[in-house]
Amino acid sequence: MIILGIDPGTVRVGYGVIETEKNTLCHLASGILLLPPHLGIMRLSAIEKELRNLIARYRPQKVGVEKLFFSKNKKTALAVAEARGVIINTILSYHLPLSEFTPNEVKVAATGSGNASKQAVAKMVSLLLHISTSKLLDDTTDALAIAIAAANKTAPSL
Amino acid sequence: MIILGIDPGTVRVGYGVIETEKNTLCHLASGILLLPPHLGIMRLSAIEKELRNLIARYRPQKVGVEKLFFSKNKKTALAVAEARGVIINTILSYHLPLSEFTPNEVKVAATGSGNASKQAVAKMVSLLLHISTSKLLDDTTDALAIAIAAANKTAPSL
Repeated sequence: MIILGIDPGTVRVGYGVIETEKNTLCHLASGILLLPPHLGIMRLSAIEKELRNLIARYRPQKVGVEKLFFSKNKKTALAVAEARGVIINTILSYHLPLSEFTPNEVKVAATGSGNASKQAVAKMVSLLLHISTSKLLDDTTDALAIAIAAANKTAPSL
Repeated sequence: MIILGIDPGTVRVGYGVIETEKNTLCHLASGILLLPPHLGIMRLSAIEKELRNLIARYRPQKVGVEKLFFSKNKKTALAVAEARGVIINTILSYHLPLSEFTPNEVKVAATGSGNASKQAVAKMVSLLLHISTSKLLDDTTDALAIAIAAANKTAPSL
């Protein structure tokens, strides 16, 4: 089964594509959606387009998206929520099973602990997927951890 | 010119459709998007569908959407922002000129004052559009005020 994990953001939207087979996980692709800067509100259309390209390329059968928690920067939180709305609506248009995870649930899925550091999450993503995460952006590592969380979840949240 | 105003919300999304002709404004339609309760995350798909129906029916040439300000209820604000992302992305897919207005800008457009009460806004909407606003929900009256703000704006914000 191919699983897509998405970490929504304002400037960067991280994605991770993994495959599960007989209890092992395998890294297929990961990165950041290509969004030209200074797009303004057109960013939302660009996110939809890039996400559709990603889904067409990897044909995931299951998707995980991180839930928003409240950052100190309120303005950023609203912009991320707008992007997240577009991401979720795009995924729903494919009728793909979608699970949402809080940052805590993602940490638990990757490391067993909700208090894990970013470093611990990156280390476990590296071990579970047999890749080096040292050159990955945080958003990409997080997206892979979200995909792992979705892989561990037996039933979709919907 | 036909103008659509949208007031995004979690439970209710208000809309107002007006027409401008030789400096006069005319009410065409207004109400609340029909969103069945308990939709959960599928609400986002329902908002897109209802909005597309509305645009197909009235074929607006210009759209105004209210900007979010931070309510005390942070959880609600994020849910409204997700809906707003879907609304904006849907409008952008028609390449319609889109303007965004803060609640203050909407009040100024309708009443001349950014400190106007809800009652004052409703009264001016009623006077400008020659309709009774007494039986309209706040979200509908606000959507009509947003359409009026968009009508007054000569160039789109994009």
